[in-house]
Amino acid sequence: MFSEAETDPVLPKDKFKTQEARLRTALLKAQYDLLKKADRSLLIVVAGIDGAGKGATINLLNEWMDPRHIHTMAFGPPAESEAQRPPLWRYWNELPENGRIGIVFGSWYQPLLREAARKHPDADTLERHATHVRAFEAQLAANGVQVIKLWYHLSAKAQAERTERLLSSPETSWQVTPADRKVARKFKRLRSAAEVALTHTDVPYAPWVIVPSADESMRTVCTAETVLRALRRRGAPRVSQPSTPARPRITDRLARLDYAVHADKDEYDTELGLLQGRLARAVRSPKFDKHSLVLVFEGQDAAGKGGAIRRVTQALDARQFDITPVSAPAPHELARPYLWRFWRRIPSHGRVAIFDRSWYGRVLVERVEKFTPPTAWQRAYGEINDFERQLADSGAIVLKFWLAVTPDVQLERFQEREASPFKNFKITPDDWRNREKWQPYADAANEMMARTDSGHAPWHLISANDKRHARLQVLRHVVQALESQL
Amino acid sequence: MFSEAETDPVLPKDKFKTQEARLRTALLKAQYDLLKKADRSLLIVVAGIDGAGKGATINLLNEWMDPRHIHTMAFGPPAESEAQRPPLWRYWNELPENGRIGIVFGSWYQPLLREAARKHPDADTLERHATHVRAFEAQLAANGVQVIKLWYHLSAKAQAERTERLLSSPETSWQVTPADRKVARKFKRLRSAAEVALTHTDVPYAPWVIVPSADESMRTVCTAETVLRALRRRGAPRVSQPSTPARPRITDRLARLDYAVHADKDEYDTELGLLQGRLARAVRSPKFDKHSLVLVFEGQDAAGKGGAIRRVTQALDARQFDITPVSAPAPHELARPYLWRFWRRIPSHGRVAIFDRSWYGRVLVERVEKFTPPTAWQRAYGEINDFERQLADSGAIVLKFWLAVTPDVQLERFQEREASPFKNFKITPDDWRNREKWQPYADAANEMMARTDSGHAPWHLISANDKRHARLQVLRHVVQALESQL
Repeated sequence: MFSEAETDPVLPKDKFKTQEARLRTALLKAQYDLLKKADRSLLIVVAGIDGAGKGATINLLNEWMDPRHIHTMAFGPPAESEAQRPPLWRYWNELPENGRIGIVFGSWYQPLLREAARKHPDADTLERHATHVRAFEAQLAANGVQVIKLWYHLSAKAQAERTERLLSSPETSWQVTPADRKVARKFKRLRSAAEVALTHTDVPYAPWVIVPSADESMRTVCTAETVLRALRRRGAPRVSQPSTPARPRITDRLARLDYAVHADKDEYDTELGLLQGRLARAVRSPKFDKHSLVLVFEGQDAAGKGGAIRRVTQALDARQFDITPVSAPAPHELARPYLWRFWRRIPSHGRVAIFDRSWYGRVLVERVEKFTPPTAWQRAYGEINDFERQLADSGAIVLKFWLAVTPDVQLERFQEREASPFKNFKITPDDWRNREKWQPYADAANEMMARTDSGHAPWHLISANDKRHARLQVLRHVVQALESQL
Repeated sequence: MFSEAETDPVLPKDKFKTQEARLRTALLKAQYDLLKKADRSLLIVVAGIDGAGKGATINLLNEWMDPRHIHTMAFGPPAESEAQRPPLWRYWNELPENGRIGIVFGSWYQPLLREAARKHPDADTLERHATHVRAFEAQLAANGVQVIKLWYHLSAKAQAERTERLLSSPETSWQVTPADRKVARKFKRLRSAAEVALTHTDVPYAPWVIVPSADESMRTVCTAETVLRALRRRGAPRVSQPSTPARPRITDRLARLDYAVHADKDEYDTELGLLQGRLARAVRSPKFDKHSLVLVFEGQDAAGKGGAIRRVTQALDARQFDITPVSAPAPHELARPYLWRFWRRIPSHGRVAIFDRSWYGRVLVERVEKFTPPTAWQRAYGEINDFERQLADSGAIVLKFWLAVTPDVQLERFQEREASPFKNFKITPDDWRNREKWQPYADAANEMMARTDSGHAPWHLISANDKRHARLQVLRHVVQALESQL
């Protein structure tokens, strides 16, 4: 795999000059084409042997192209706020907008490379890391983020010579970092770790390119050529989704629900207070410092999501929670994978994030209203399961509620809203239109619940014709989940 | 000050019902008017005696208005990432867009209130905190953020009765927090602390309103009335800027600069390496863990900012710095005070933030091109000084560079850029137009340097007709500043 790069090929100076002029012109043009079309973004992962000149090459790339449309990001060990979220959180947060280029140092390959570089790597751990990497890149590629990965490589001899040369003069000796010195001793192990990591993750939709790095000119031209090829790509790659779950049996849960249940006023007042008390105690408990709570509220219009949410937040300290009301995505959100705007809102430990509508819009309104092609929303089930799996793995307790009403009750509430001078803002022509599509929405909801119900992020279908019953049910589930998991 | 609130006035139930209907309708209308006009945002600071019902009232406000356009934020003790920036950083970050409403719990009054509540408050510390608060609110008010402040108050007796009542039943006892119990013991001291804090900060452009809170109906109606009055305000308030510095003597520093200095190629290569080595060592030093570095680059077009920046970043680890290229603000940035987008980019400790153009656009391009009225850019000098003072106080080492060229050298570089297929993207009709306004830009730069040069954030005027000289000069200043301050 590295044999060619380890011959340390050299590009003669005069050839470099010709190449430089051609490449700079072509790169700029390709960059502006991408910016204008803005049909995707390009993410360049930079990795390789320390001291291979990654940093200098990326500096040069910024000089050759228009740096205003390139975002270079570099990640070290996770900060406290990052350690409390899924490991991919910080990469999601920084995804570039369509039309732009992102360059990533210290990428999501770190755990995989670290494991592979151990004396006795664990095969299962390796495979798990590799699976996560592939799933992430597949999701990016399928959602308009083109990914290429550069591995900077040179021979052990060239590496040692470079270090020696730099150390020989005070003008350059500072360029040798402690990591560079380590490489000399551990070259063999790093090399075989890289071999493992690259083999596990070289996929057509996110290929690895090995850049021979002993010679600066060669390294530069090879990098530029690779980026140019990527920018000139036409058409999206075929992504083989690694984790499309088998289609489960879809039952009509909405039709089978008992809509007659209700709670009496007295019973309600007492139980509400008691449940809120248990909730308040749970989120104040020191055990909650290692967890977060993510609550998703979906349901038909006028099913009472807002009221149910307020009964939850009454028990919380205002400093502890955030409510995210979700409506149609803004332009800068549309210019990124659809999960991006939700990743940005996931809570740190000790906090509660409440979503009033959510990422499930992808398989509900976007499906029914045909905003998104079928391949995309069908793929979303797997992507969402993966997202929630990551949330749960990082300590989040995830609960999802569908508040269900019957058409006649919805009609009553619509009419009541229209008649009230301070509630009529809640009802729009859209609501009436959606009502016409009752069954398509119900079908979408049933399929969604069947395909995204999981032990770590369960769906709770709530009978909501009686508001009091619905509010108590929501609180019961939240309290139960917290008390059993803390 | 609190005597009226401490009579614990009550609003009869029937009166409340009438008020509620009227207020909800009026509040919604006023909220939508604000959203439509979007000429400002409204920030509501919520504070008061613990257990006065702040949280419940704000919950209700969210129910009465359209919660999608209200952002409730609550701040506890600063997290690690917050402690490494100026104390106001987290509030700046969360400023709502024009047209929207923000509600703040745990506001910038915390340090002032804490000091005032000490057994023997220090008068100087009090005054310093109060000055910071007033300056911040003045800046917000002058830049399109309307601020109102609510203090929830009740008598010691009512407070004690409330606690007792809540504790008497398991359905409500959880509502009593440890803070509530403390209040009972410390009521007197909290009360006098509040008196001090409010007296020091009750200003016409950001007034305090005391909300009688013993009775829920009274508390609710009073809150709603206050918010309604604020939403209905016409015209901006007169802000008496607390810190407009006297107009200094403005010297024509640009004209007096020696443009003939230059560096020889050999000398340049050697010194560049040595300076970069010193820079690399400085930012890797453990002492830098308590500091950050903020570099501002301004200058005429084609003065060589990009090249100078790259000579700095060559010495840095890619994981350690961010470059922010500054161009015209985007719509969501225009909808907030102009410093907002820069606050969001200030570095945590151990990091380097480089601005390729900066907040000084306010007093350069916005002044010369008349994008901003004179009162606003004249006010900006003081606001910028205040901003940089806060950066320095939080550990940032701030350096500002003006790279100066003469018109003939600029012309040469423009022509060279136009002739090069991979540099002509750097030159636009705007550049030629700006060139026509050479003197107005020079005047603006001279005044800017005179009015914002400070010990903690000095301007360095760099002779840049010779690029090598300019790059060395920049590095010399950076290295000197780091070595003397670490």
